[in-house]
Amino acid sequence: MALTQARTMPGVMELLPLDQIALQQMLDTIRRNFERFGFLPVETPVMEFSDVLLTKQGGETERQVYFVQSTGALEQGGKPELALRFDLTVPLARYVAEQEHDLSFPFRRYQIQRVYRGERAQRGRFREFYQADIDVIGKDTLSLRYDAEIPAVIYSVFRDLAIGPFTIWLNNRKLMRGFFESLGIVDPQAQALGLREVDKLDKRGADHVRDTLMGEAFGLSAESAKKILDFVQIRSSSHADALAKLDALQTGNVTLSQGVSELRETLELIKAFGVPETHYAINLSIARGLDYYTGTVYETTLNEHPQIGSICSGGRYDNLAANYTKSQLPGVGISIGVTRLFWQLREAKLLGAAQSTVTALVTQMDEAQMPAYLELAHHLRSAGIATEVVMESGKLAKQFKYADRAGIRFVLVLGPDEISKGVVTVKDMRKQDQFEVPRADLVKTLRVELEQAQVMPA
Amino acid sequence: MALTQARTMPGVMELLPLDQIALQQMLDTIRRNFERFGFLPVETPVMEFSDVLLTKQGGETERQVYFVQSTGALEQGGKPELALRFDLTVPLARYVAEQEHDLSFPFRRYQIQRVYRGERAQRGRFREFYQADIDVIGKDTLSLRYDAEIPAVIYSVFRDLAIGPFTIWLNNRKLMRGFFESLGIVDPQAQALGLREVDKLDKRGADHVRDTLMGEAFGLSAESAKKILDFVQIRSSSHADALAKLDALQTGNVTLSQGVSELRETLELIKAFGVPETHYAINLSIARGLDYYTGTVYETTLNEHPQIGSICSGGRYDNLAANYTKSQLPGVGISIGVTRLFWQLREAKLLGAAQSTVTALVTQMDEAQMPAYLELAHHLRSAGIATEVVMESGKLAKQFKYADRAGIRFVLVLGPDEISKGVVTVKDMRKQDQFEVPRADLVKTLRVELEQAQVMPA
Repeated sequence: MALTQARTMPGVMELLPLDQIALQQMLDTIRRNFERFGFLPVETPVMEFSDVLLTKQGGETERQVYFVQSTGALEQGGKPELALRFDLTVPLARYVAEQEHDLSFPFRRYQIQRVYRGERAQRGRFREFYQADIDVIGKDTLSLRYDAEIPAVIYSVFRDLAIGPFTIWLNNRKLMRGFFESLGIVDPQAQALGLREVDKLDKRGADHVRDTLMGEAFGLSAESAKKILDFVQIRSSSHADALAKLDALQTGNVTLSQGVSELRETLELIKAFGVPETHYAINLSIARGLDYYTGTVYETTLNEHPQIGSICSGGRYDNLAANYTKSQLPGVGISIGVTRLFWQLREAKLLGAAQSTVTALVTQMDEAQMPAYLELAHHLRSAGIATEVVMESGKLAKQFKYADRAGIRFVLVLGPDEISKGVVTVKDMRKQDQFEVPRADLVKTLRVELEQAQVMPA
Repeated sequence: MALTQARTMPGVMELLPLDQIALQQMLDTIRRNFERFGFLPVETPVMEFSDVLLTKQGGETERQVYFVQSTGALEQGGKPELALRFDLTVPLARYVAEQEHDLSFPFRRYQIQRVYRGERAQRGRFREFYQADIDVIGKDTLSLRYDAEIPAVIYSVFRDLAIGPFTIWLNNRKLMRGFFESLGIVDPQAQALGLREVDKLDKRGADHVRDTLMGEAFGLSAESAKKILDFVQIRSSSHADALAKLDALQTGNVTLSQGVSELRETLELIKAFGVPETHYAINLSIARGLDYYTGTVYETTLNEHPQIGSICSGGRYDNLAANYTKSQLPGVGISIGVTRLFWQLREAKLLGAAQSTVTALVTQMDEAQMPAYLELAHHLRSAGIATEVVMESGKLAKQFKYADRAGIRFVLVLGPDEISKGVVTVKDMRKQDQFEVPRADLVKTLRVELEQAQVMPA
């Protein structure tokens, strides 16, 4: 029979088991923290009706959509009725609008699923990737306090992911809008263009942005351009510094004052949420998209790896689901692009050596003793210790090599000596240590070793 | 602006948060047990190249496939290059063939992902559903011992899912094949047709099957038809009974003897794996498809709900990936259709009242005390207790009602009295019990209550 070449499409991240375990641990850590803060799980179908999915989009997004057709629909021809989700925000809006009467508001949901984008194939760009989102959706109104809770969740997630020091950057779109107004840039479109330039600050540098602002399209004075550049370069170095820098911005503009006041209240509450001031700061250059966000905006960066860019971003928006319902649904939320983050951490060699989900391997010395091996495995599994038994006969050295390669920490040997003495020989592959333990103490002993490992990772 | 109606496609199961939590707990329980037995996680992309996915299929399967095209591909016309996976077995075969040189064999993988089938819309039929699969793949050979490990995993999963007593039914295709041979039905196609009839026994009844076997298509004698019906109605009532019934089958046919011997060894090892004999039995009617399985086959049914049919099925096959590689890759595995199972359990009212992932709600009596509420929440979250804080001001009665509706167990009140006394008032919504506890003992107290809940579910 002719063989078909086994291959996967470009732009997807398919992992070998040890890497999959590392990714899974990352997803589990994120989920645990989302749940710890009282967010509820939602999963939506991978497919949505095309007209529902593409309501407000168009342009770039529509060009990147994957359309879906069943065999029958394909044969009939015509436009595809279904498409794969390209983010978790549009499905959330559809979900909340559809289930509105069965949900309690403020509705706090987390969603960790894969999304799909028909991107051009390129290193580090994914056509299928995990997003991990939280959002709090209010009915008619939503307290600013939720804007402060979001950084508390971000802090908790990235502290537990243990990928190095990080900073949660905050800004407020009202503050930016008010500042532009105070410079006489009142037209929303002109503001949007100004914000888009400001967004390029990190990539293009201050000179480029200044030239553009003073160029034909904007025609700002040197003074205004300087004011904008000074403004967007404001960063705080502590909680008190953030408050002081906000105070210094007062100009009498109403929108700006409102932005300052919101950002100030948010900062005070972030502190009350127990987030250390080393981990948050204001950064008045952050704009995050042009028309979606209306208040607080967030980005998060790794202090020692700024080139990775923001690893967790989001903000406050006025109305989630205007395309689907007349209800006013303000919200605030963030998204972590987990696949991209995992890929970048691996590229930057920031991921530790993977360890298997399998904790113990019961070796096979003598086929005839198989019932004893199975009984030992049953004992360990009943105690919640993930255990594999060597089922195929083979040399012990080969079994040890397998455990080493597979990242299994404890290799258990039960030979005639051990059986007659009522003990088990344990080889700790990580510590390169070998010891005998009475059968009755085995579970306890392994648990102690495992708990130590959690406190002090090797 | 004109509204688009928020709606989901038919044939998908989208859940409200409390139901999603119940489904998630089911998936977590399955995953925990798969890991406990040393299976490693694999996830594959939702899309495969169409030619890879549809290699050996055709007919029914191909008619049910969802094809995928990016906007660009759609504009260019032509046949879709991509399609959504319709099971987890074909992607496993592709994965193992593609990664063959980086995997250790026997390769033990679990995979819990959604699959897609363009089924006709019908109650209880899903176009998107979770499958939870395990397989052990050998290189060239695979010990029969793995055939016995699979029921040990099945037992562990369904014991922990706690959905009532269940039976794992075993059969062996060699036994059936040998039995047909001993009746003179040697042609593989005739055997296949015979097996297909036997598969209808539960649905159509013995009389229908007998008539068909004696009818034009088969032309069996009354004696042969009776023998077949007697054979396929063999069930065991205990471990010893299973062995005795297998012994009674000896007819001198080589294939049958081999089947008897394999099934006997499998049964002995299942016992050694610690599976109670109340939970497994032989059932010689089980055929499971016509040409895929070659040895042991499994089905699992709920004793008190036979109408649900098999909730976990699978078996042994000779060669996983013949379409993609010349390597001989025998395997054994099972699949749980989780979405269908969840749906059926809910229909049969076998799912207990859902409880939220949120354990505690910190109420808001006085807005000015918000920092104290946040500090309390921080304290609980740091101890791993999932906690929500009421952020919007409102009547306390409304806050209690929210907790009740949301399935949150502990409602915490921190009023001026409590603050001055250094205590917290706890209302246990499940026990309808209210008590005061010193702030320093709160975490310990809640943990004790939670652990009791795990031992004795309400």
